[in-house]
Amino acid sequence: MDEFDLIRRYFAPLSAGEVGALDLRDDAAILRPDPGTDLVLSADAVVAGIHFPAETPPDTIARRAMRVNLSDLAAKGARPRGYTLVLQLPEIVDESWLSAFAGGLAAEQDEFAVTLLGGDTTCTPGPLAITINMIGQVSKNKMIKRSGAHEDDDVFVTGCIGDAMLGLACAMGRLTFDDPADAAVLESRFYHPDPRMNVGPALIGLASASADVSDGLIADLGHICVASGFAADIVEELVPLSATARSLTKDDLSLRTALLTGGDDYEIVFTAPVSARKAVSIVAVETGVPITRIGRISKRNREGPAVAVRNAAGDIVEVGHGGYRHFGNGVAG
Amino acid sequence: MDEFDLIRRYFAPLSAGEVGALDLRDDAAILRPDPGTDLVLSADAVVAGIHFPAETPPDTIARRAMRVNLSDLAAKGARPRGYTLVLQLPEIVDESWLSAFAGGLAAEQDEFAVTLLGGDTTCTPGPLAITINMIGQVSKNKMIKRSGAHEDDDVFVTGCIGDAMLGLACAMGRLTFDDPADAAVLESRFYHPDPRMNVGPALIGLASASADVSDGLIADLGHICVASGFAADIVEELVPLSATARSLTKDDLSLRTALLTGGDDYEIVFTAPVSARKAVSIVAVETGVPITRIGRISKRNREGPAVAVRNAAGDIVEVGHGGYRHFGNGVAG
Repeated sequence: MDEFDLIRRYFAPLSAGEVGALDLRDDAAILRPDPGTDLVLSADAVVAGIHFPAETPPDTIARRAMRVNLSDLAAKGARPRGYTLVLQLPEIVDESWLSAFAGGLAAEQDEFAVTLLGGDTTCTPGPLAITINMIGQVSKNKMIKRSGAHEDDDVFVTGCIGDAMLGLACAMGRLTFDDPADAAVLESRFYHPDPRMNVGPALIGLASASADVSDGLIADLGHICVASGFAADIVEELVPLSATARSLTKDDLSLRTALLTGGDDYEIVFTAPVSARKAVSIVAVETGVPITRIGRISKRNREGPAVAVRNAAGDIVEVGHGGYRHFGNGVAG
Repeated sequence: MDEFDLIRRYFAPLSAGEVGALDLRDDAAILRPDPGTDLVLSADAVVAGIHFPAETPPDTIARRAMRVNLSDLAAKGARPRGYTLVLQLPEIVDESWLSAFAGGLAAEQDEFAVTLLGGDTTCTPGPLAITINMIGQVSKNKMIKRSGAHEDDDVFVTGCIGDAMLGLACAMGRLTFDDPADAAVLESRFYHPDPRMNVGPALIGLASASADVSDGLIADLGHICVASGFAADIVEELVPLSATARSLTKDDLSLRTALLTGGDDYEIVFTAPVSARKAVSIVAVETGVPITRIGRISKRNREGPAVAVRNAAGDIVEVGHGGYRHFGNGVAG
């Protein structure tokens, strides 16, 4: 089976129903946004051994790669239209792997109403890598940017924070529970994040700035602050944790702080004017997704951090560098 | 320097002037096609050691990656709008490498009027890999597809075929010349392909089907035939070769045949009705790009090859499997 058989057998079916995908038989796809909309583009690569354990099952890899990219759109208030998939496959990949991988993509396509538009498949002597360019659309000029936060805006976050970091620790064998069901729930939060596709579009007109929590709550809120030219104060006690995370960190405050920088939550962190509080609570009720107010936007102080985390007494808590960074050890000069 | 510094220093300047790129400070970019146009999407990944020699200088890698992707758009009749860049960087990459790489991209952006819209940067334990999603636009419903060829259409190709394959052989030390200038010209055809950006749009309304020659003339014309449901007959003697390629293959007919399957030419192979011959010759004159008629489209014969290559006597010449295929040795079942 060569790359053309592979595309025909496993990936062309994922493009069915999208006329512009041309059955994946062309060099290119055609995309025409609906009238009155802007397209929203996001691109994310995930590499085995860097972004997920190399032994992750293929359908889980596929589903997570899709969800990570869908989450970017959700945070922007956009609805998905389609995606391109670029696969770098090691020689060890076999047909059963490909079949399961394509099955994972198909499941996500069904759930999120998104279709494969095109892509590229190549072999690599390196690890498996999956690059998805996700294309969404949003009403003209309505995309929620990182740069719109203002002083005194509230800071909100959806769902709860930290489970994905704990789940990865379970998956890596660094954290164990007496009851394996506890570990399974946390691991599922890492492997199977829940992009907040309904929350994002509902925040258009309410949120002043928004990002999804991929690098870590502190880091992603920091990106909003830097892009907006402000700072943020958040209260550690207000950051929503699951019951498991709360009980696990009860006696270990430094672990609790670490959850704020752990990343992979794929929740939405956003800012909104105080006047929007009631409307935000209605979004939470209507989408069934908890939304918690955790702090506020403040003036930028050049000496201070972009995001200050305070304890119940109002003192600043040290949170480390705040989020995962590639090349964090420095790129040689 | 972490990934955010890296983006700010080397890549954000490449997005200047494109409002929708949001200075690369957001999770996503905004793109609004011009009224009356369709967007055309193409995606290509290039991996060091697979698609180009690993020791290729960084600005050359950048320029080639851009040109390979621009060529896809050209073949579709589209004009470039912007691109996303996903970089997988090995640890050995340093700032001087990044600076030269970004410089290569900047040079191409100037030449082809295209702007960086967004992307992702990650480290990898594997080889350097560059994924570009190129986004172009074309008048509504005018994209030239692979699937439009009809029986008795002429088959044309731009420029000349085979130099890139010979150039790669020079670069790999498998082919040498007494005069190093001869090798340099051929290598440049591999490293610095010339996407036919002006020819493609001029073929709208003339060409019935089109593809760029990346996998090899026979393979890419074969894709047109399969997508269109026809076959093609081409005459080997008519395939345009450079003077160097012609002299090199004068006494080695099997090498000459190999050039037709070698790939990396980034010329355009297209079909057009006989009635368009004069108009096609005018496109050649107006763009300054040679366009050569090399054969015609015929009925599909299930037993025959999609593309039959004939010698001057009209006999079919054996051309092997016709083009580079990843996983050509078979993916394990």
